[in-house]
Amino acid sequence: MENTKNEQTLGEKNGRKNVVGEDQCSGLNAMGVLEQIKGGLIVSCQALEGEPLHSSIIMAKMAYAAMLGGARGIRANSSSDILEIKKVVDLPVIGIIKKEYPDSLVYITPTIEEVARLVACGCEIIAMDATNRKRPNNEALVSFFEEVRRRYPHQLFMADCATYEEGRQAAQLGFDLIGTTLNGYTEESVNDPKPNYCLLSDLVRDSGKPVIAEGNIWSPKQLQLARGCGIHAAVVGSAITRPMEITKRFVKAMED
Amino acid sequence: MENTKNEQTLGEKNGRKNVVGEDQCSGLNAMGVLEQIKGGLIVSCQALEGEPLHSSIIMAKMAYAAMLGGARGIRANSSSDILEIKKVVDLPVIGIIKKEYPDSLVYITPTIEEVARLVACGCEIIAMDATNRKRPNNEALVSFFEEVRRRYPHQLFMADCATYEEGRQAAQLGFDLIGTTLNGYTEESVNDPKPNYCLLSDLVRDSGKPVIAEGNIWSPKQLQLARGCGIHAAVVGSAITRPMEITKRFVKAMED
Repeated sequence: MENTKNEQTLGEKNGRKNVVGEDQCSGLNAMGVLEQIKGGLIVSCQALEGEPLHSSIIMAKMAYAAMLGGARGIRANSSSDILEIKKVVDLPVIGIIKKEYPDSLVYITPTIEEVARLVACGCEIIAMDATNRKRPNNEALVSFFEEVRRRYPHQLFMADCATYEEGRQAAQLGFDLIGTTLNGYTEESVNDPKPNYCLLSDLVRDSGKPVIAEGNIWSPKQLQLARGCGIHAAVVGSAITRPMEITKRFVKAMED
Repeated sequence: MENTKNEQTLGEKNGRKNVVGEDQCSGLNAMGVLEQIKGGLIVSCQALEGEPLHSSIIMAKMAYAAMLGGARGIRANSSSDILEIKKVVDLPVIGIIKKEYPDSLVYITPTIEEVARLVACGCEIIAMDATNRKRPNNEALVSFFEEVRRRYPHQLFMADCATYEEGRQAAQLGFDLIGTTLNGYTEESVNDPKPNYCLLSDLVRDSGKPVIAEGNIWSPKQLQLARGCGIHAAVVGSAITRPMEITKRFVKAMED
């Protein structure tokens, strides 16, 4: 009840529907967010430190461009980028924080600290590495996600998985969305086809959760094929928002 | 002789090879520029007023990203964008100024004023509408380009053409590069295939000048086919630097 009141107050204050708090998503809101992105394109707007477009202001403009182009959601990295994006874009945000720790290969929202910061940003969905690789401090996914869910029972969480087994496991652990983000980026999956339509179909059939196609989608044609696998939504990033990577592909076509 | 001296002085001052002046391109430099872009990809970095990424700073970062991705030249619009781009990118620039006049449909570098401003920016190549449509003040292309060439005898000029006839005419008038930029955008060409590989092949065979493929290239595959027509270089713009337009294409794939 208190939560509902806070939500309304903040909602009114900001003139927006996103609110910030320990557990801001009611069950109804969560369903609304899933409905909002259903059948839609989510555009990932990321430029890490060292990339030519690194700047929260520019990422906000990218997200705005994506919204004008018809995107139904934005995926973004870092509190700074997400807060800037939320000033100009009224779409659900899948938030991540990429952070490297010396004792782990997991770098997408690896610890509870990054989760807490993303909750504080009012992310409608929070994504995290859901592979079976050890997290920082030798933590396993299962105990980590138990703690995450205990603290934020109504927040939507997306599992960035690499394999079919990880996708099914994430569904059982209680993730709300199953993504194929890390397919091709782990030892077991590095040789998988790109995009991995088979993995998408299998997870749609067996996970019992909305599946998000993410990773290695470079053309509208590939997106169409991914859609044909029965996915809930798809994330496209580099092909839209990383001009250096796009340039490389065209340059290659001039040289081949 | 004076020109050469000025070039060296300015070149030293800026630590760059681009110089500003009434007629800064020696014949040797011009050949060097053509050689530099030969077989390469030129990335067009434009965001007009009202577009989400409109900003000379952002266009400079886009151009920088394109350079890191392997671009061999940049096409850009407006003195402000070009000067900003030249601060961070050491590639030949094809400069244009888009300006609408009430009495003409020609908007790519329509008058001698825009040409003068582009020369002052030190553009290695200046592109302009080379269709047979009347320019502002009822001026015809032929008399206009005679005046342009008289004032800037050693500057490289690219003809933005819509048809085969216009391409051949531009070559005869003394343009240095023949581009297909306006194919599909004039009354006679609006129904032509996109990209128009046939037009490229015909101009390569008959114009006697380096042909630049520009317009409606959306995929590396299309670029490869354009290259197969024997072009000197190709310009790709929206597919790399206009995230809103790219998003629209992916959104369409989700909806079709």
